[in-house]
Amino acid sequence: MTHGGSSETIPPVELRLAAEDDLPAIVALLADDPLGASRESSDAKVSDAYRAAFATISADDNHLLLVAESKDEVVGVLQLSFLPHLTYEGGWRAQIEGVRVAARLRSLGVGRAMFEEAIERARARGCHLVQLTTDRRRPDALAFYERLGFVASHDGLKLHLGET
Amino acid sequence: MTHGGSSETIPPVELRLAAEDDLPAIVALLADDPLGASRESSDAKVSDAYRAAFATISADDNHLLLVAESKDEVVGVLQLSFLPHLTYEGGWRAQIEGVRVAARLRSLGVGRAMFEEAIERARARGCHLVQLTTDRRRPDALAFYERLGFVASHDGLKLHLGET
Repeated sequence: MTHGGSSETIPPVELRLAAEDDLPAIVALLADDPLGASRESSDAKVSDAYRAAFATISADDNHLLLVAESKDEVVGVLQLSFLPHLTYEGGWRAQIEGVRVAARLRSLGVGRAMFEEAIERARARGCHLVQLTTDRRRPDALAFYERLGFVASHDGLKLHLGET
Repeated sequence: MTHGGSSETIPPVELRLAAEDDLPAIVALLADDPLGASRESSDAKVSDAYRAAFATISADDNHLLLVAESKDEVVGVLQLSFLPHLTYEGGWRAQIEGVRVAARLRSLGVGRAMFEEAIERARARGCHLVQLTTDRRRPDALAFYERLGFVASHDGLKLHLGET
């Protein structure tokens, strides 16, 4: 799907599933982020751990990596997962994680285009709900999600497991 | 695993994977909740939607339903999911959802026993993180998770998809 055209501020963006060749660009997007900088590998070479995760995600129809491409360059990424649950009378949920847009293209509609595509895919899969969590150190992200209609009804908690 | 014994306030609880025969008890737990009452089917008969969700969850090694049994009765349930991600250098996360403990047995350690089991399983699967969201209308639940070491670092957002 191609978005944009009517507004000069939105670059033409194509949304598609990620291919393995996109991994270097995706990892660069993950690392080019104040919070991601300390979590991601900054090596130019994509580590085997990323390749293994990509292979696992690609092999499971319930997980997909969506990228936004502009002028033959990957400028955005998110992971969309479809999760089965007993709650809500056995309803499927969609969950969005790892949202990144290239710094120079932020606030131009790339994120919105990715979310419209993700929400459309969630509907097509019969999900009753789309959910995500956002780090409280990213107030701009919270405002972006609220503009899309998301409601911050929950607290998101994390427990990091140390080495055992 | 059997928990309890040292303290008289904690009933002996066995943690195990749910079987299909447990579904009526599980659905009753989901519905016996101020928030769940409006979301879950209150029919005594377990609907096909619950059965289909149970079958989907049971067929996927990355999702499991853990129940707590006390005196041959299911008194607690949670869903534990193992999710592959590119972020954190391709790290697996564990996610907990749909936590319920029978009203008459709350604050006696059943929830803690279920979480200890879930966290142990997350470690065994190599997850670097356990995550969950909790509805802000459940302040007691937030305090419980914080006592377990979870940190409320995120906002949890939901977008309910209406009929199209």
